[in-house]
Amino acid sequence: MFRSISEMSFALRDKLVGFRRDFHRYAELGQLEMRTSSLIARRLSELGYRVLVGDDVGMPGIAMPVPEVLDAALQNARVTGGDLEYLEQVRNGLTGVIGILECGDGSVTALRFDIDALGINEDSSEQHRPTREGFASIYPGVMHACGHDGHAAIGLGVAEVLIGIKDSLHGTVRLIFQPAEESLRGARAIVEKGHLDDVQFLLAGHISKRLPGESCDIIAGCGGSLAAVHIDVTFRGRAAHAAAAPEKGANSLLAAAGTVQQLYGISRSSVGDTRVNVGTLHAGTARNVIADHACMEIEVRGKNDEVCSYMETQAHRIIHCSAEMHGVSAEIKTMGSCDALESDPALMEQVAAACGKLQGVSVHPQLRREVGGSEDFSCMMRRVREHGGQATMLRFLTDITDVVHGSGFDFDDADILPKAVAAMSAVLYDIHGSHQRLGKCYRNILIF
Amino acid sequence: MFRSISEMSFALRDKLVGFRRDFHRYAELGQLEMRTSSLIARRLSELGYRVLVGDDVGMPGIAMPVPEVLDAALQNARVTGGDLEYLEQVRNGLTGVIGILECGDGSVTALRFDIDALGINEDSSEQHRPTREGFASIYPGVMHACGHDGHAAIGLGVAEVLIGIKDSLHGTVRLIFQPAEESLRGARAIVEKGHLDDVQFLLAGHISKRLPGESCDIIAGCGGSLAAVHIDVTFRGRAAHAAAAPEKGANSLLAAAGTVQQLYGISRSSVGDTRVNVGTLHAGTARNVIADHACMEIEVRGKNDEVCSYMETQAHRIIHCSAEMHGVSAEIKTMGSCDALESDPALMEQVAAACGKLQGVSVHPQLRREVGGSEDFSCMMRRVREHGGQATMLRFLTDITDVVHGSGFDFDDADILPKAVAAMSAVLYDIHGSHQRLGKCYRNILIF
Amino acid sequence: MFRSISEMSFALRDKLVGFRRDFHRYAELGQLEMRTSSLIARRLSELGYRVLVGDDVGMPGIAMPVPEVLDAALQNARVTGGDLEYLEQVRNGLTGVIGILECGDGSVTALRFDIDALGINEDSSEQHRPTREGFASIYPGVMHACGHDGHAAIGLGVAEVLIGIKDSLHGTVRLIFQPAEESLRGARAIVEKGHLDDVQFLLAGHISKRLPGESCDIIAGCGGSLAAVHIDVTFRGRAAHAAAAPEKGANSLLAAAGTVQQLYGISRSSVGDTRVNVGTLHAGTARNVIADHACMEIEVRGKNDEVCSYMETQAHRIIHCSAEMHGVSAEIKTMGSCDALESDPALMEQVAAACGKLQGVSVHPQLRREVGGSEDFSCMMRRVREHGGQATMLRFLTDITDVVHGSGFDFDDADILPKAVAAMSAVLYDIHGSHQRLGKCYRNILIF
Amino acid sequence: MFRSISEMSFALRDKLVGFRRDFHRYAELGQLEMRTSSLIARRLSELGYRVLVGDDVGMPGIAMPVPEVLDAALQNARVTGGDLEYLEQVRNGLTGVIGILECGDGSVTALRFDIDALGINEDSSEQHRPTREGFASIYPGVMHACGHDGHAAIGLGVAEVLIGIKDSLHGTVRLIFQPAEESLRGARAIVEKGHLDDVQFLLAGHISKRLPGESCDIIAGCGGSLAAVHIDVTFRGRAAHAAAAPEKGANSLLAAAGTVQQLYGISRSSVGDTRVNVGTLHAGTARNVIADHACMEIEVRGKNDEVCSYMETQAHRIIHCSAEMHGVSAEIKTMGSCDALESDPALMEQVAAACGKLQGVSVHPQLRREVGGSEDFSCMMRRVREHGGQATMLRFLTDITDVVHGSGFDFDDADILPKAVAAMSAVLYDIHGSHQRLGKCYRNILIF
Repeated sequence: MFRSISEMSFALRDKLVGFRRDFHRYAELGQLEMRTSSLIARRLSELGYRVLVGDDVGMPGIAMPVPEVLDAALQNARVTGGDLEYLEQVRNGLTGVIGILECGDGSVTALRFDIDALGINEDSSEQHRPTREGFASIYPGVMHACGHDGHAAIGLGVAEVLIGIKDSLHGTVRLIFQPAEESLRGARAIVEKGHLDDVQFLLAGHISKRLPGESCDIIAGCGGSLAAVHIDVTFRGRAAHAAAAPEKGANSLLAAAGTVQQLYGISRSSVGDTRVNVGTLHAGTARNVIADHACMEIEVRGKNDEVCSYMETQAHRIIHCSAEMHGVSAEIKTMGSCDALESDPALMEQVAAACGKLQGVSVHPQLRREVGGSEDFSCMMRRVREHGGQATMLRFLTDITDVVHGSGFDFDDADILPKAVAAMSAVLYDIHGSHQRLGKCYRNILIF
Repeated sequence: MFRSISEMSFALRDKLVGFRRDFHRYAELGQLEMRTSSLIARRLSELGYRVLVGDDVGMPGIAMPVPEVLDAALQNARVTGGDLEYLEQVRNGLTGVIGILECGDGSVTALRFDIDALGINEDSSEQHRPTREGFASIYPGVMHACGHDGHAAIGLGVAEVLIGIKDSLHGTVRLIFQPAEESLRGARAIVEKGHLDDVQFLLAGHISKRLPGESCDIIAGCGGSLAAVHIDVTFRGRAAHAAAAPEKGANSLLAAAGTVQQLYGISRSSVGDTRVNVGTLHAGTARNVIADHACMEIEVRGKNDEVCSYMETQAHRIIHCSAEMHGVSAEIKTMGSCDALESDPALMEQVAAACGKLQGVSVHPQLRREVGGSEDFSCMMRRVREHGGQATMLRFLTDITDVVHGSGFDFDDADILPKAVAAMSAVLYDIHGSHQRLGKCYRNILIF
Repeated sequence: MFRSISEMSFALRDKLVGFRRDFHRYAELGQLEMRTSSLIARRLSELGYRVLVGDDVGMPGIAMPVPEVLDAALQNARVTGGDLEYLEQVRNGLTGVIGILECGDGSVTALRFDIDALGINEDSSEQHRPTREGFASIYPGVMHACGHDGHAAIGLGVAEVLIGIKDSLHGTVRLIFQPAEESLRGARAIVEKGHLDDVQFLLAGHISKRLPGESCDIIAGCGGSLAAVHIDVTFRGRAAHAAAAPEKGANSLLAAAGTVQQLYGISRSSVGDTRVNVGTLHAGTARNVIADHACMEIEVRGKNDEVCSYMETQAHRIIHCSAEMHGVSAEIKTMGSCDALESDPALMEQVAAACGKLQGVSVHPQLRREVGGSEDFSCMMRRVREHGGQATMLRFLTDITDVVHGSGFDFDDADILPKAVAAMSAVLYDIHGSHQRLGKCYRNILIF
Repeated sequence: MFRSISEMSFALRDKLVGFRRDFHRYAELGQLEMRTSSLIARRLSELGYRVLVGDDVGMPGIAMPVPEVLDAALQNARVTGGDLEYLEQVRNGLTGVIGILECGDGSVTALRFDIDALGINEDSSEQHRPTREGFASIYPGVMHACGHDGHAAIGLGVAEVLIGIKDSLHGTVRLIFQPAEESLRGARAIVEKGHLDDVQFLLAGHISKRLPGESCDIIAGCGGSLAAVHIDVTFRGRAAHAAAAPEKGANSLLAAAGTVQQLYGISRSSVGDTRVNVGTLHAGTARNVIADHACMEIEVRGKNDEVCSYMETQAHRIIHCSAEMHGVSAEIKTMGSCDALESDPALMEQVAAACGKLQGVSVHPQLRREVGGSEDFSCMMRRVREHGGQATMLRFLTDITDVVHGSGFDFDDADILPKAVAAMSAVLYDIHGSHQRLGKCYRNILIF
């Protein structure tokens, strides 16, 4: 019996919610998404996709996890139901999966779904639904607080819908399940591997808060997210007994504290909005010893490259001068970066039109949402545009608790997951449906 | 064949060096000295001492290690040659050993040897003798950088000498191998158990740098070390996305950084010398999240109780106001404390006289050395004085590399260990030798 | 002989440049613009305007200058050519002048020209044209670095043109020469006096940098300037000898330094752009005394009222907690405030149309310029809108050296002053020209 | 009729109190003690001393007051009863007076009395006796809060007593009324002029608090005061509009605030006690301008030269790195310095013995008091010792309100001034009395 994309998508609701909550419960940090990757690879393989994992997906970047960390993550993945066969192929930290559906000649479209969790302690109170309903993260300090668990589930849903309509499609679709978005490293690794080099249409989506008064589900694009640079700093000083000879030490912790103060105090800029954050700081070895080392994870952001670069320059100056002031050394590593993100207007129009045909899915009258934050999807966008392709990131609107990256973050998965699957599938059908090649529209009405 | 205390002590040189380097190599942090304690207990038992361990030694205090940490330490101790039988008795974190030698009626003397290591990364360069000769700590971030490995070895040496002369002794000698000196918690636990309640003479010793121009080995006492208070602080704020909604967070890391700056800036006092140190700081969970927690280990010190209390009061005020300033909460725990330390003049005279009779050991013409730092031995001294006893801490002088608590700390063990054993044994003989009871001095000359 | 507004305005070029350079040379701070006010009043009087000064212009606000400061300013004004008669009427610090031209029935339009200088040291190098050509400020630390000298000159130019065409006008025109714009206090004082209560059209203008590639002279409106709040803080602590008893002091200077650091570190907000500045800090009495007082002039700004209020709240919290942390008291005074500024679209259209008819003046194709900074003109705008009036602030574009408020600020007065006079006069004629009343346009073409 | 030194001194009580309160009321800052110097010179001249003023007293040093300041001080001195003739000779800022009494051959003794006030606002409440009784300083921000008003009065008292007994004296006595003690510049200027080059005995005295339980008046010497260095810093940055282009500024005020925090945070030293103070900070020109300059008066101190030098080095490093961090320049000037102070034991013995003979004056059984603070008298001491002379600073004990350098500082002038005069005169008689030369003691008993 023939069913529309909407019907197919909504029929997946329980499955999608199940995927999402499973990923949520076994949240994995960037480059350690072994269990998640292995299960995605297994599912795509079962559906009939050509599946790439490990070295075939990305390039090793800076700051690959150390062996001990990889081993611990592998062990966790094994005992929590990871696919043992695929785990072997991602145990090197080159996580992520690409599923490829080839339907003959035609253009290439890539969909990107990010799959990594964050270093956050999940709210353990009964107020928090994942806790109450038993799907909160089992790992202290690791949590899906940005919706990537949902993104991964949407990707699997789209994969299933596509298989259902693949006889009507032409061209190539790549479903990219990307690791390490939060650290701004995952996209780059995949871009450098070449997976975006022949892509004409690039799509991604992000779960977002439905604002007061809004009743729509989908926004066709977004923009305004900030360019960002990630910096790791290590100060190395000299230990000394804090009472017997404090003046003989070189105090890395004090240097770090001063640096933190000064970083947040970098002047606002008239050129555009900026951000700065010192997300983590670890310093010192013992209470009665002048701290001989301090490590910080820092990020700076800006409305555009100019002002992001201004923030980076100021940060470097502050770090170097703080170090010199306290007689400690400073090692600065750039860990990741991304551009400001902006959807292509033409593709936004196309997305809005395609989604507008869906039953049970409501498209926002505004094409574009202004968003905060930073997104390493911008790195993929840049590559696609370099050869004339187009890109957009959709927003999937639903009810959300707490702020993004808050320990109480949760979203209405049963509401939005099937709608998001429908929206992305509809766009894919709009691009790759046979009517396009044949110049015929007759299936169009049916399928949406 | 009869031998003098000096002869007996110097004959132990190689054994003492062996003990010290073994303890050095398997350095254990305070309350985790399981291997060290088990081996000391075994040795004392072999020598014929009545041996107390576990609950018989101390009382559980604040901040006992969590089970995971205890288990890891136990596991380490098991695989590195710890005594399996005694390990079972110290696995609860009540480490430390007391060896008791009872020689009939007479006064009670206690000797205290501290045995814990520090949270310091040992110098791994070839310049550092322990590294070069293969006895550097096998544990990253744990190091004997304060000579307690030597103190433990001296205690075992004294134990052996005493057994050799025990027929000439009367009264009771307690050899207290104390854990957790660096955290200022170990002495208190033993005092509260009552082990000092009947002690007339209390001795300890500390390896110290021989100053330029000095050629002596032993100083009879010391003073001037600072009163100290250990404070742990936890700030708890609110996580938020550092770009999308930074203003919704409550930044614990920034609160901590400001606190650090202000703590070091507490006014110097005309009442007396002060110290303040933030030894460790750990904050935040992820780069792009406003840090929701920050933990610090702090210590303040002062020349006397008044000025130490001034520092503590200021620190509390700064912590509370910093927390309020950033909308975070602050939890302050007092983790340990000690008084200023001062040796008793009469006992110093006695020590100097007794040691002055030794062959091959040279006593400093000054009775007392001014020392920095803080010592929880002061807690034992106070108890002994409360019932009219006397106490002193000797200084064992030798060549030392780097500063105390420095990552390159080392001392000339072959030089000072036998001398220190001789000195403490001589004092014990001076107090407990039979000639004292009998009013006869004839053995005095022989034995020294 | 009949002349167009353009002709009349351009004929004033030398006079306008003369006015501007005279005001520049004798720069006066807000509420001390005695010489400037007296000369403006004299000139308006000579031209035939009804002139209001002193109590008739504004209401005394917070922070009126103290008598000594007023006396010194009066004395300076007297010896540098101020009008002695009018000086007597503004010596109380109620500076500013209103010139009224009544042409029978009709609507009321107000033009506002701000006249105060800034607390900045003018660049004394030969590179700086005012220095080179001898019209730099004679007062150290006082400088027209924001173009208000030009605004005052434009006001006098408009006054002269209006008199030339007054027979063609109906209704009432008020030329408001406003003091103390920089401190955000001057507009409020005039609003509260009621001078805006019956105004239908309200205009102001600001000299601005012509951007690279631009060749236009006039922009019809602007927006985006920030809401702002001015705060004065006084910390009061306790003096003590900095060596003999530093711990007995309560250090206001240290409290202030910590406050400064924390203020600049207030979190950026996702709600909108923010600013914070500590413009001045004066603390302490002697090197060897713990500082017993510290005074700061602070401002916070935000894209809208919500985020400006967020900044103000954070600032108050920081100030209070810093004070408590150091045992000092904090007195906070709100010295001024303004709303975000936005021109009315309809009036911008009218302005652009009217100016578009002028010879020799080029209107920017964009109606509105996004501007930074803050403007207390917003306070007048709000009053006018409350009863249905419209308001706009024009931008007068020309070449500018250095940044606004920079010590090397200068602008091309010969270029822009006559054009600005023409623009404002044209708008006035567009509103108040007799053709409007009579429904006849015949003079319209002639006069522009 | 013959009178003893005690009788002569106590007879001066009202006169001494009068001098002190007059000096207190017209308090003058260092290098501006014009009125004070002129009246001292006049009085010494009347008594018959050879009087040196102006260029004959000292050498111009760094940081002489600017002409405007000198002129203002001169004007103040003229209208408040200064001696017009002598005022002309000290108007160049080379204040201070030396009175010389030559009594034939013999040794040279110098007495030093410091005469400058402090930059402190005097307590204006009725609780403060100088306010209540009408002799509080008439100058805002200038106050005798360190007892130098009393020292000057004591000097005039000694001058009068000496004249009374001059027929019994031999040798030379120099009464040095030294300016600018608080800035650590006055002593150096006089030393460099050579006035100490032939001095065998050097005396000074300081009014001090009588401690609880003490009933003595005089202590023969003191020590333990700190070595000190005075540093002035000027940061110069770049002004910019704080809202329109804050990122274009270079914020001197923020650089200064960070410097302040870091300076107070310089590590305590195990080498000895330290101090640091930022006494004054003045920065910025206007609220809405990024501050282009900031000036600070800083002092560092240490128990000895080594640790004082450590503090100075750290301070320089902090200042330079803070400047670089904020893109501002830093100019550092060393404004003054002094050594640690310690009285000579032999001279203390002599002082105690001499004063012990006085009626109505009680000498402390301890020869030496440990004092805080710093004293540029140490500079004179050093010179005298270089050629074998001896020096001591007596302490004059009495009841004192508030702390030294506190705004409520006052002392019991009627109690201590005559006793201090008696003590210093007795020591002078002990050194220079004819009995010394003649080997006869008969007048000794009478005169004390």
